[in-house]
Amino acid sequence: MKTPQRILLAHGSGGALSHELVRDVFLRAFYNPSLAPMADAALMDQLPPGRLALTTDSYVVQPLFFPGGNIGELAICGTVNDLAVMGAQPLYLTAGFILEEGLHIETLERVVMAMAETAQQAGVQIVTGDTKVVDRGAADGMFINTAGVGVVPLGIDLGPQRLQPNDLILINGTIGDHGMAVMMQREGMNFGSALESDTAPLNELLAALLATLPGQIHWMRDVTRGGLATVLNEWAESAQMGIELDEVKIPVREEVRAACEFLGLDPLYAANEGKVVVAVAAEAAEAALEVLQRHPMGSQAAKIGRISTANPGRVVLNTPYGARRIVQMLTGAQLPRIC
Amino acid sequence: MKTPQRILLAHGSGGALSHELVRDVFLRAFYNPSLAPMADAALMDQLPPGRLALTTDSYVVQPLFFPGGNIGELAICGTVNDLAVMGAQPLYLTAGFILEEGLHIETLERVVMAMAETAQQAGVQIVTGDTKVVDRGAADGMFINTAGVGVVPLGIDLGPQRLQPNDLILINGTIGDHGMAVMMQREGMNFGSALESDTAPLNELLAALLATLPGQIHWMRDVTRGGLATVLNEWAESAQMGIELDEVKIPVREEVRAACEFLGLDPLYAANEGKVVVAVAAEAAEAALEVLQRHPMGSQAAKIGRISTANPGRVVLNTPYGARRIVQMLTGAQLPRIC
Repeated sequence: MKTPQRILLAHGSGGALSHELVRDVFLRAFYNPSLAPMADAALMDQLPPGRLALTTDSYVVQPLFFPGGNIGELAICGTVNDLAVMGAQPLYLTAGFILEEGLHIETLERVVMAMAETAQQAGVQIVTGDTKVVDRGAADGMFINTAGVGVVPLGIDLGPQRLQPNDLILINGTIGDHGMAVMMQREGMNFGSALESDTAPLNELLAALLATLPGQIHWMRDVTRGGLATVLNEWAESAQMGIELDEVKIPVREEVRAACEFLGLDPLYAANEGKVVVAVAAEAAEAALEVLQRHPMGSQAAKIGRISTANPGRVVLNTPYGARRIVQMLTGAQLPRIC
Repeated sequence: MKTPQRILLAHGSGGALSHELVRDVFLRAFYNPSLAPMADAALMDQLPPGRLALTTDSYVVQPLFFPGGNIGELAICGTVNDLAVMGAQPLYLTAGFILEEGLHIETLERVVMAMAETAQQAGVQIVTGDTKVVDRGAADGMFINTAGVGVVPLGIDLGPQRLQPNDLILINGTIGDHGMAVMMQREGMNFGSALESDTAPLNELLAALLATLPGQIHWMRDVTRGGLATVLNEWAESAQMGIELDEVKIPVREEVRAACEFLGLDPLYAANEGKVVVAVAAEAAEAALEVLQRHPMGSQAAKIGRISTANPGRVVLNTPYGARRIVQMLTGAQLPRIC
C-alpha cells in the first residue's frame, strides 16, 4: 500500500492506516523503549522520590509555523515549562493529535520532528500518544495536546504562601516576543528579523536556579497567554499582597514595541513561551539574577518589581514619568489562538 | 460581570473570563485538593510502589450526546480503561478542552458534570486541566483530551510475550453497542431502546480478575475503535501466534445486528467503549469467566476463542456453517468520529 500524501479519515480509524501512520511518522520520530510496544498505556520504571507533578495543555496556535517556532515546539516547551515552574524535573510526555482530513502528511512530519528535537533538548521522552482525524472543516489543520509528568524533589516548596514583602520579581528576558511574532505572521507583516517567538524549554535554567539558591526562590510562573500582567495579577490575588512593577526595567524589544503600537496592544498582555517570573528573597536577588544571566535563556534577565504590603491583590506599575497606574488582569481576548 | 451563555474567544485567553470559567464550571465539578490551587501543574503525593503507567486519548465523537453516554463519560472511561488493561490502578487524570466559539455553556456544563460523575465511579481524580477556544468553524463544538496516570503493582506482567497456545480468549459482553448507538443517533434512526453505548470504566472488573487469578491472566486489551477484529489482529501479529474465534460464541445484541445489517457493517469492526478481551491460561478460564460474570459489567461474558499455533499472525473465524474465514484488521474508516 502506497502511503497517501494527505491525512484521510481512515488514519484515525484505529485500523491498518492508523498503524501505518504511527509506525512511519510517530514511532520513527519519538522512538524510545516505553513508546515502542505501542500498548494502551506506556509503562515506565518507578519514579524517583518526590511529589508527582502532572500538567496538560492543548495547542491550537494559528498559523502552525511562525518565526522562531511552530506548534510542535510549543507543545513540548509549554508543558515542560508548566512542570519546571513547579520545581519539577519533567520526565515523560504524552502527545495527542487531532488532525483535519486533508492535512498534508509532510506538514505533520515537520511538526513531529520539531517535537522530537525539542523533547530531546529538554531531556524528556514522549512515551505514549493518540491520533484522531476529523472530517474536513471540523478542525483547523492540527491541534496537539501534551500532558506531562515530572517529579518535585523533596524539600522544594514554592507557592503563594511563600511570598514575602520585599521579595524581588525577576524575569528572564524580553516580553511579548511570541505573541507579536505570531500576530505579525498571521497579518502577513514583517517588523524585522528580530521579531521571533521566544519558545524555549526552561527546565534546565530553572533547575540551576533552584539548585543554587535552595529555599530562597519563593514562587515561579511561566508567562504565557494573558501575558505578564495576567500572571502577576494571579500572584497578587492568591497571595493577597501587592506587586509593584517598574515599567522602565521590563525588557521589551524595539520590534515588539513597534508591533504592539501598530496593533494597538500592550506588551504587558502579549504572550510569551520562554519567559518566567521568579519571586526571590531580597537578599538572594543578585545571586539569582547572575544565575539567570549566565544561561542563554536568561541573558537579558532583569529585576522588574517587588512584593509589597501596599495595595494587596493589586499590581501597580510605576511609569517613567513618575505616575502610577493599576495593571488589570487581561479582559477580553487580545490575541486569540496564540498558543 | 454577568456570565455569558455561550463560549467566547475570551474564555480561552487566559485572562479574566478564563478564570471565571474555571471557577464556575471546572473547579465546581472536579473539586479536589490537587486541582484546587489551579497552579501550572498539580502536585500529588508520591505514587504507591510499582511501575508508572501513562496514557492519553483525544475524544472527537459526534454527536456529543448519544444513547448510553456522551463525550465526557467517554473521555473518562477510555483513558481509565487504557490504564486498567495494562494492569494499572488508575489514579489521576488530566482534562484538556478545545471549545468552539459559540458553544452553549450549558452543554459544556453537562459534559463536565458527566466527567465528574464517571471519574468518581472509577475512583480517579481529575487534577489538572486546560481550556482553549478556537474561532467559530475551526472546531466542531468540543474536543476533549484526557491523559491518565496509574501504577502497575509489582509482580503484574501482561503482554504479547505471555500468550501461550491454548490460552482462551474471553470477552466481557456484547460487541458493537457503542458504535451502533452513535451511528444510529447520527443517522436519526431508532432500532429499539436496547441500542445503547456500553461506555463504562472497567478498572474495578479487571482489578478483581487480576486479584483472583494472579499470573494466569496473560494479556488484556479494551476493544474500542477498530473493533474486536482489529484488536485480535494486533495480538496475533505482535505475538506471532494464531487466533481462532467461534462466531456463534461472540455476543451480539439483536438490535446491534439489525443496525449493522442496515448500514452494511460487520459487528466485528464496530466500536466498543466498555469491552475488554482477556487471554487467560486454559486451566483458569472457567474461574476467570465466573469473576467476569459476577460483575455487572461482565454479566454476559463469554469464551469466544483461543490462541493456536496454526496460522501465526492471523485471526481465523469459525462460522456456524462449518466454514472458516480469515478476519483482517480494519481497513478504511468504517465509522469516523466514533470516540
